[in-house]
Amino acid sequence: MCGIVGIYNHPEASKLAYLALYALQHRGQESAGIVSSTGGDLKAYGAMGHVADIFTADVLEKLPGTMAIGHVRYSTTGESAQKNIQPFTIAYSRGGLSVAHNGNIVNAAEIRDEFEAHGAIFQSTMDTEVILHLLASTKKNDLIDRLIEVLPQLKGAYSLVFLTETRLIAVRDPFGFRPLVLGKKDDALVVASETCALDLIEADFIREIEPGEIVQIDKKGLKSIKPFPPQKRAHCIFEYVYFARPDSIVFDRNVYEIRKGFGRELALENPVKADMVVPIPDSGVPAAIGYAEESKIPFQMALVRNHYVGRTFIEPEDSIRHFGVKVKLNPVKQMMEGKKVILIDDSIVRGTTSRKIIKMVRDAGAKEVHLRISSPQTAWPCFYGIDTPTRDELIASHKSLEEIRQFINADSLSYLSRPSLYWFEKQKPGEWFCDACFTGNYPEGAQWVQRALKTDDARGAATRGSRRIRAV
Amino acid sequence: MCGIVGIYNHPEASKLAYLALYALQHRGQESAGIVSSTGGDLKAYGAMGHVADIFTADVLEKLPGTMAIGHVRYSTTGESAQKNIQPFTIAYSRGGLSVAHNGNIVNAAEIRDEFEAHGAIFQSTMDTEVILHLLASTKKNDLIDRLIEVLPQLKGAYSLVFLTETRLIAVRDPFGFRPLVLGKKDDALVVASETCALDLIEADFIREIEPGEIVQIDKKGLKSIKPFPPQKRAHCIFEYVYFARPDSIVFDRNVYEIRKGFGRELALENPVKADMVVPIPDSGVPAAIGYAEESKIPFQMALVRNHYVGRTFIEPEDSIRHFGVKVKLNPVKQMMEGKKVILIDDSIVRGTTSRKIIKMVRDAGAKEVHLRISSPQTAWPCFYGIDTPTRDELIASHKSLEEIRQFINADSLSYLSRPSLYWFEKQKPGEWFCDACFTGNYPEGAQWVQRALKTDDARGAATRGSRRIRAV
Amino acid sequence: MCGIVGIYNHPEASKLAYLALYALQHRGQESAGIVSSTGGDLKAYGAMGHVADIFTADVLEKLPGTMAIGHVRYSTTGESAQKNIQPFTIAYSRGGLSVAHNGNIVNAAEIRDEFEAHGAIFQSTMDTEVILHLLASTKKNDLIDRLIEVLPQLKGAYSLVFLTETRLIAVRDPFGFRPLVLGKKDDALVVASETCALDLIEADFIREIEPGEIVQIDKKGLKSIKPFPPQKRAHCIFEYVYFARPDSIVFDRNVYEIRKGFGRELALENPVKADMVVPIPDSGVPAAIGYAEESKIPFQMALVRNHYVGRTFIEPEDSIRHFGVKVKLNPVKQMMEGKKVILIDDSIVRGTTSRKIIKMVRDAGAKEVHLRISSPQTAWPCFYGIDTPTRDELIASHKSLEEIRQFINADSLSYLSRPSLYWFEKQKPGEWFCDACFTGNYPEGAQWVQRALKTDDARGAATRGSRRIRAV
Amino acid sequence: MCGIVGIYNHPEASKLAYLALYALQHRGQESAGIVSSTGGDLKAYGAMGHVADIFTADVLEKLPGTMAIGHVRYSTTGESAQKNIQPFTIAYSRGGLSVAHNGNIVNAAEIRDEFEAHGAIFQSTMDTEVILHLLASTKKNDLIDRLIEVLPQLKGAYSLVFLTETRLIAVRDPFGFRPLVLGKKDDALVVASETCALDLIEADFIREIEPGEIVQIDKKGLKSIKPFPPQKRAHCIFEYVYFARPDSIVFDRNVYEIRKGFGRELALENPVKADMVVPIPDSGVPAAIGYAEESKIPFQMALVRNHYVGRTFIEPEDSIRHFGVKVKLNPVKQMMEGKKVILIDDSIVRGTTSRKIIKMVRDAGAKEVHLRISSPQTAWPCFYGIDTPTRDELIASHKSLEEIRQFINADSLSYLSRPSLYWFEKQKPGEWFCDACFTGNYPEGAQWVQRALKTDDARGAATRGSRRIRAV
Repeated sequence: MCGIVGIYNHPEASKLAYLALYALQHRGQESAGIVSSTGGDLKAYGAMGHVADIFTADVLEKLPGTMAIGHVRYSTTGESAQKNIQPFTIAYSRGGLSVAHNGNIVNAAEIRDEFEAHGAIFQSTMDTEVILHLLASTKKNDLIDRLIEVLPQLKGAYSLVFLTETRLIAVRDPFGFRPLVLGKKDDALVVASETCALDLIEADFIREIEPGEIVQIDKKGLKSIKPFPPQKRAHCIFEYVYFARPDSIVFDRNVYEIRKGFGRELALENPVKADMVVPIPDSGVPAAIGYAEESKIPFQMALVRNHYVGRTFIEPEDSIRHFGVKVKLNPVKQMMEGKKVILIDDSIVRGTTSRKIIKMVRDAGAKEVHLRISSPQTAWPCFYGIDTPTRDELIASHKSLEEIRQFINADSLSYLSRPSLYWFEKQKPGEWFCDACFTGNYPEGAQWVQRALKTDDARGAATRGSRRIRAV
Repeated sequence: MCGIVGIYNHPEASKLAYLALYALQHRGQESAGIVSSTGGDLKAYGAMGHVADIFTADVLEKLPGTMAIGHVRYSTTGESAQKNIQPFTIAYSRGGLSVAHNGNIVNAAEIRDEFEAHGAIFQSTMDTEVILHLLASTKKNDLIDRLIEVLPQLKGAYSLVFLTETRLIAVRDPFGFRPLVLGKKDDALVVASETCALDLIEADFIREIEPGEIVQIDKKGLKSIKPFPPQKRAHCIFEYVYFARPDSIVFDRNVYEIRKGFGRELALENPVKADMVVPIPDSGVPAAIGYAEESKIPFQMALVRNHYVGRTFIEPEDSIRHFGVKVKLNPVKQMMEGKKVILIDDSIVRGTTSRKIIKMVRDAGAKEVHLRISSPQTAWPCFYGIDTPTRDELIASHKSLEEIRQFINADSLSYLSRPSLYWFEKQKPGEWFCDACFTGNYPEGAQWVQRALKTDDARGAATRGSRRIRAV
Repeated sequence: MCGIVGIYNHPEASKLAYLALYALQHRGQESAGIVSSTGGDLKAYGAMGHVADIFTADVLEKLPGTMAIGHVRYSTTGESAQKNIQPFTIAYSRGGLSVAHNGNIVNAAEIRDEFEAHGAIFQSTMDTEVILHLLASTKKNDLIDRLIEVLPQLKGAYSLVFLTETRLIAVRDPFGFRPLVLGKKDDALVVASETCALDLIEADFIREIEPGEIVQIDKKGLKSIKPFPPQKRAHCIFEYVYFARPDSIVFDRNVYEIRKGFGRELALENPVKADMVVPIPDSGVPAAIGYAEESKIPFQMALVRNHYVGRTFIEPEDSIRHFGVKVKLNPVKQMMEGKKVILIDDSIVRGTTSRKIIKMVRDAGAKEVHLRISSPQTAWPCFYGIDTPTRDELIASHKSLEEIRQFINADSLSYLSRPSLYWFEKQKPGEWFCDACFTGNYPEGAQWVQRALKTDDARGAATRGSRRIRAV
Repeated sequence: MCGIVGIYNHPEASKLAYLALYALQHRGQESAGIVSSTGGDLKAYGAMGHVADIFTADVLEKLPGTMAIGHVRYSTTGESAQKNIQPFTIAYSRGGLSVAHNGNIVNAAEIRDEFEAHGAIFQSTMDTEVILHLLASTKKNDLIDRLIEVLPQLKGAYSLVFLTETRLIAVRDPFGFRPLVLGKKDDALVVASETCALDLIEADFIREIEPGEIVQIDKKGLKSIKPFPPQKRAHCIFEYVYFARPDSIVFDRNVYEIRKGFGRELALENPVKADMVVPIPDSGVPAAIGYAEESKIPFQMALVRNHYVGRTFIEPEDSIRHFGVKVKLNPVKQMMEGKKVILIDDSIVRGTTSRKIIKMVRDAGAKEVHLRISSPQTAWPCFYGIDTPTRDELIASHKSLEEIRQFINADSLSYLSRPSLYWFEKQKPGEWFCDACFTGNYPEGAQWVQRALKTDDARGAATRGSRRIRAV
C-alpha cells in the first residue's frame, strides 16, 4: 500500500508535501520521496525509511519550488529496494515527468513484456514504470491527451499524481479502487490519499477526485475531464476495514463511524456473554467501541500498545526466544484475571498473530477468550494494491470457521457477515465496493484473475522483472 | 524521569536489559545506555536517542557477560548531553562501579560543593555523580557497608541499580518515591522500574524492592537488608496519574485500574451533560473509560493520535505556521460536529496544549467542550525526578479555576479533588503518597524546600555545575 | 573520469571488485558501485562517496556470487547525483544487464533525442543509458550480436564491462581512448582500468583489451572477437600526463617512466639555473625527478601534502578567508628561503591554483620561482571523458605564454613541446594518441566537434536531459 | 601520540582550532575534540574519527567564543574509547577547566592509586585525569599557583593547553619532551604542537613555549613564568626521526632538513652500490633524498602510496588472504626489474612490515634489496608518549643486526649510528635529546623505569584502571 500527495502553488510546496506524507505514514513505512518543481527543473529526493527521518531541514531546503508531489511506500513481498522508491522521475521527449502511484496495475507484466520485446529497458521492478513507458510512447502531443490514450490500456488500481515542470495532474482509475481527495489551503490546491493529510496542513477538504477523473492544475487553474465511459465503482472495502486512518473521510464517509458500525453489527450478529470488550490496538478500537455500546458490555483498553514499535527493532536471536507480539502489545493482567474477554480485531490473515494474542490473554488469566472480527473471512489475495499473502497462506481460504477457532484457540470466533459489512450502504444505493478479498469476485472479470490465481503469482507477475535485478 | 533495569545470571544479560529498556522507553527518550560485566571487566555503551536505534545487534555483541544494568533518560531542563548518559561508570579504589539512577537527589548541590571544596572534580552535571563520590570517599571496605554509610546523607528520590564486576545491587530510598520491582526469569533475577519490563522479557514479578531496602545479588544469591529506621512512605502519586504504563503494577497496584478509578470519581464529582467522553490519547484513555462507565455517556476515541510522532520531527519554519498539537492529534470531525464533548486529560501544566486541543475540537465543530482533569491542580514543582517547569510556569500556581477555564476556553473545567484522588487507598491504610505537586507539602520538610522555592531553582541547584561545562 | 573492474569465476568476486575499486579510487571519488551475479540474480549496491566508506563487510555480504563488476565515478560538471551511480542495471527482454562505463559517448544526445522521439524514457543523465537503450532495441538474439550491431553507432570513448546473470563482457572502443586490461588470479579472470588494480588483488597482468575488441567470458572460457575494421588509435595522452597511477601499465607502457621522461625532456628544452627542483605533489613527482636528474639540480620534496585531504573538508566561511591550496600543500620554508626554485606540475587548467602555489612559495621566501609544465598548453576541452572546463575557462585558450606567466606571477614559465611529449613513441611507430586537449585535433573529425565547440556544450549536449531532472 | 592547539582572542576561535587540528591530524587519527569558551561557559564536542569528519559546519556553530583548545588523539594500546577523547573537561571548586595533553605521565598510576585510596573516582583511563585531580585538590587560589604546586609532582612528558572560562594556559614539561610553539594571527595568539598548524591558519611563528615554561594568556595579555629550576633538556629525537611533519619547525629546527641530513649521514656511513634509492613513503622521503644526493645514486619514487588509505578499510576475511602492506604501497615494477634497490625507511619496529615490503620489491623483480634505516636500532619502549610496543616485540631488542637482516630478507641492512644521528647538534651544544628508545637511557633515572621494564607495563601501569571499565 502507498500514500500520495500533490501540492500546487504554495511557496513551501515541498514542506507541505512532507507534512502531508507525515500524516499518511500509516499507508507506507518502507520508503518516502518528494519531487518539487521550480517551474524549470524537477528536484527529487527519496530514501528508505520513515518520512520524519528522511526529510531533514537540509533536504527540504534542496527541494524548492511552488509545486511538489510525494509518496510513501509500503514494503511489498520481497522487493524492498532503493530503486523502487517513488515518485518515479524520468525525462522523455516532452521534458521531465514524475509520478507517485497508489494501487497496482494488474496487467503490468503483459505490458512490460511487450515493451521489452520492442527493445525497452526497465530499471525498477514497479508496475508504475510501465505507465511511464506507455505515456512516453504514444504520439499525442499533450500529456492530457497521452493520458486519455494510455489509461484505458491499464487494468487495475491507480490513484496517481503527476508532476511536470509546470503542472500537476491527479488521476483516479474508473473503478475508484483507491481514495484520492482534493483540498485547498489559501491559494494552494492539494491532492492527497486521505483527508487526514489535509487536516494536518490545515487545508480544507473540497471533494473526492472522482473515479475516472483527470484533474489538471496549472497556472490557468484547475481543469477536470472525465473522458471515459461510466463504470461500476469498486471502492476497496479494506480501506474501511483496516487501511485508512479513522479520522479520514474516505469514499465520502468517515472511517471511524464506519468501523464503529462494523462493531455494532458484529454485536448484533454474534452476541456473547462476557465481562469486557477489548480491542486489538489500534485498528480494532472503533469496532470495539461499537461492539461495547451495542452489547452494553464494558469497553476496556486492556491490551496496551508500546508506542515505540514503529522503529527498527533488533530482536535477540540466541537463547532468548522470539518475543513476537509481546514487543508490540502487553495485557493488563489485573483487568483480565478470571474474566471473560471479547477481543475485537479487524481481520485474520494467517492466524498466527491472533493465536499469539489469545495465548497472551489466556496467560494473563482470562477465563474465556472470544474473538470477533469486524469483517468477513479474508480468503482471497488482493491484486489491487494491498499486500496480502498468497491464497495458500490465508487461513480462511482452506480452513473452516471451526478449524480456525481451534487453530487460534479461542472459546468462540465469529466474523462479520458480508451483508452487515454494508450496513452503511443502504443510505447510498448505486455504489459498489471491491470485496474480492472476502468473496473472490474480482471486479475486472475472470480472464486474467484465473491465470493469476493459477500461478498464485498475480502480483508477482506484475513485477516479474524483479527476479533479474535486486538492489541490496 | 528515567527508567532503570538490572539483569543477573543470564547468558544474554545485555540483550534482556535492552528488551527491558525497550519496554521502559516511555520513562525517558533522550538517551539510553547499558553496562555489562563478564565477571572481570565492565563494558559500557550509551548514546543519545531511542533504545531501538542505539542498540543494534553489533552493539549488543560488544556487551557480553551474564550481568547487565541499563538506563533510559528523559530530557531535563536544558542539559541534554552526551556526558550525562547513564549508567554512570567509574573506577575507584575497589574496582569498577556503574550505576543507573531514577530520581533526584535534592541536596546534590550541597554535597557537590563540599566535595569540590576538598578538591574533587566533576565531569557530568548529574546529581548521580555525587552518589559515586560519596561511595568512593568512605572508608568502609565492602560496597554494602559503604552504601549504608552513604545513603543516609542523601535527601531526595533514588531508585538505583549498581553493577560491579561480580554483583548487582538494587536500592530504593526510604520514602519509596520511585518504583522498583524484582522479578525472576528462569535462573536469572531481574530488577526494573516497572513490571511491564518484566512482562516483555517473560520474567515473573516477585515483589517490589521495598522503600529503604538494599538488595544484593551475587553468586551466593540474593541478600536483602533494611538498615534504616522505618520511615513514612512517599510514593509519587504522579506515577499513577501520568508517568507509569497502564499495564504495569506500581506500588503494588495496577495503574490502569487506578486511572479508571480517577475517571469514575471525576464523573461522580463533576457530572456534565454531554454526547461523548473523549480521552486525550494516550494518557487520558483509562480515566475516560472510567468516566464514561460511571456517567453512561458514550466513550469515543475521537481524537486520533499519529503513531509516528515519537520520532524527530523537523517542523517547517518559514511561512507555514507552527503546527503544534496537530502533528500529534487529529479530531474525527464527523463525530464531533454539533456535539457536546467531554475531554479527559491527566493534568494541565502550562495550559497551552489544552488550549490548542480545545481550539482544535471546536474547529472540528463541537458545540460544547468540557475539560475534566483526572488529578488535582498541578501548582508546585517536583524536586523528586519529574521534569515539571518552575512554579511561575505552572498555570495552576497563579490562576484560579475560572481563570484557567477562560485561558483554555473550555465551557467547563474541573479537576479531581484530592480526597477522590485517593479513592483506592482506603483499602490500604498506612501508606502515604507524595502529592507535593498538588499541595506543596514536600515530604522532607520546610528547610531546604523553602530555599529551593525562593531561588526557584531547587533542581537547578542540584546541577549547578551545569553552568560550567556544556557538551553540544 | 571513471574506473571500472570486472571479476569472473572467483568465490568472493564482489570482494575482489571492491579491492580493485579501492586501487582505482584515483579515477573517481564521487560514487562507487558493485553488481554481482550468483548465476541467477544480479545484486546491486552503490552510493555516493569513497569505496572504503561505502563497502562495509555487511554490504559485501549482500553481494554474493562468483561474478562482479564495479565502478568508481568522478564528479562531472554539475550532475553529481544518486541516479548516476554506476554500474547501471536494467531488465530487458533477455534478462538482467548491468554495465560500468569509462569514457564519454559524444553522440549520446543525438541518440537520446531519437529514442525519446520514439517514446523511450530516461532515468539518468548519463550517456551510458543510451548504450543500454540501443542494446535493448536491436533485434539480434545474442548480446554479442547486439553489441556488434550497436557499437558502430557510438561515437566517442568507451571502455565497458557488462555483467549478465551468466557472463562478463569487456569492450573497448576502436580508438582505444581509455585503458582496459586483462588479468588472471588463479582460476579467475579480471578486467580493470589499470594494472594497479591487478597488483592489489595479486592478479597477473595478461594483456590489454585491444581497441575495438569484445571479450566475452563465460563458463566456456574467454572468447575474443574484433568485428570492426581496423582503426587509427587515439589513446588519451592525458592518462600519461596526469590521470593514471604511476605504478600502472597503461597503453603497454609504465606511467612512471613516461612521466619521468616528460621531466627529462622538459629540462632539455627549457633549462633554467636554480637551487632546487620541487614537484607539485603528487602528480608532478616523476617529472620532477626526471627534470632533476637531467638538469643536475637537486630534487627536493619542499611542498608537503596533507595526507588527509581526500576527505570532506568544511571550510569556515565567515571572517576567516579562503584557505584554498593551503589545506592541501605547505612549503618547507627553511628550504626555500632565498632560493631559486623550479616547480614542476603536470598541467595548467585555469591558472588560479598555479598562481596560489607560486604566491605561497614566494611567501615562503623563494627568490625566484620558475614553473615547468610536463605537457603542452591545455587549450581545448576534452569530449572523451576527462572533466576539463569549457574552452573559455582554459587559460591557455586565450592567453599567450607570457600572459599566463604574468597571471601566475612566475619568473619564468615553460611547457613541454608537443614533439617532446612523444619522446617515448619513436620506439613504437604506428600508434597514435588523442592530444586534442593540446591541439584541438579531435580524432573523430570536424562534423560534430564544430557544433560542440560552437555551443560550448559538447559534453553538456550528451547529458541534455540533465536539465529536466535533478536529484539533490 | 597526540596533537594540541589553543586559540585566544579570535572571533572564530573554534574554527581556527579545527583547521589547526586538521594540520596536526598526523599526530593522532583516533579521536578529536574542541572546547570553546564564550567567557562564561565552556562548550565541548568530541568524537571518534578524523577531524574533517567530526567537525561539520553544524558542530562548529555550536562552539562559539573567542577562545578554544583542541586535541587529536592516536590510538594507544587497547584503550580506544569515547571516554578518553580529549580535551578533558571538568567542573571543580573554581569553575570549569578543560585540558588537552600531549605526552605521558609516567607516575600517573602511583598518583591515581593515592587518590583512589582517598576516595577519588576516575572516569577515564587516561593519565591526563590525574593532572586534573591534582589541580583540583591543591589549596592554592589561582590556577597558576596550583600549577606551580602540581607540576613538580608529575614525572614524564607533558605539553598541555588549559582553557578556563576566561584564560588559556600553555605548559611544557621541564625536559621539553614534546614540542609546543607559540604563534600570532592578527590580534589572536595561538599555541600548537607544530608550526605546520600555524602555517595553515596563516599565523606567524613567534617562538617555542620553552621547557618548564608556563604561559598564561588572558585579557591582560601574555604572561610567562618559569618557576622551576633549570633542567637538562630531553627533546624526543623520534619527533625528528618520524613523528613531526617535515614542513614543521620542531625544537627550533626544520624537520625536513634534519631528515635529509640523516639520509646523507647514512650514505656516508653505509655506502652500497645500487641503481636507485627508493623511500618508503612518506616518512622515508627526505632521508632518501639526502642519501641519493650524497651517494649520487638516482632517487626514484618507485613505491607508490594509495592516497585513500587513511580511511577505514574493511579487509575481506574469507578465502582472500591478508593484503597487508599492498593496500598502502605498490611498487613500480618496470623501474625495479633486474635492478639493485636501496630502500630508505625511518625505523624498524617489529620487522614484519619491512619484511613484507622487501618481499614485494623482490616480487617486482629487484635483483638486490638493501635496507637503510635513518635512525639507530629501536630497542627500548617509549614511556613518554609514543606508542611503541613492549620490549619483547621490538625486533632490535633481541636480534642482532645480522638476524634482523635475515628476518626481513634484505641483501644488506644498516642503521644510522647514534653519533651520526646528532649530525646537526654540533651547531647547538648544551642541548640534549631523549633517545632512550635507541639506548635505554631514560632521562628520569633508574628508579621507576626499572620497575616499569620489569613489569613490562610501564605505560600500562599509568592506565591500570583501564582494566575496570571499557567503553565499546
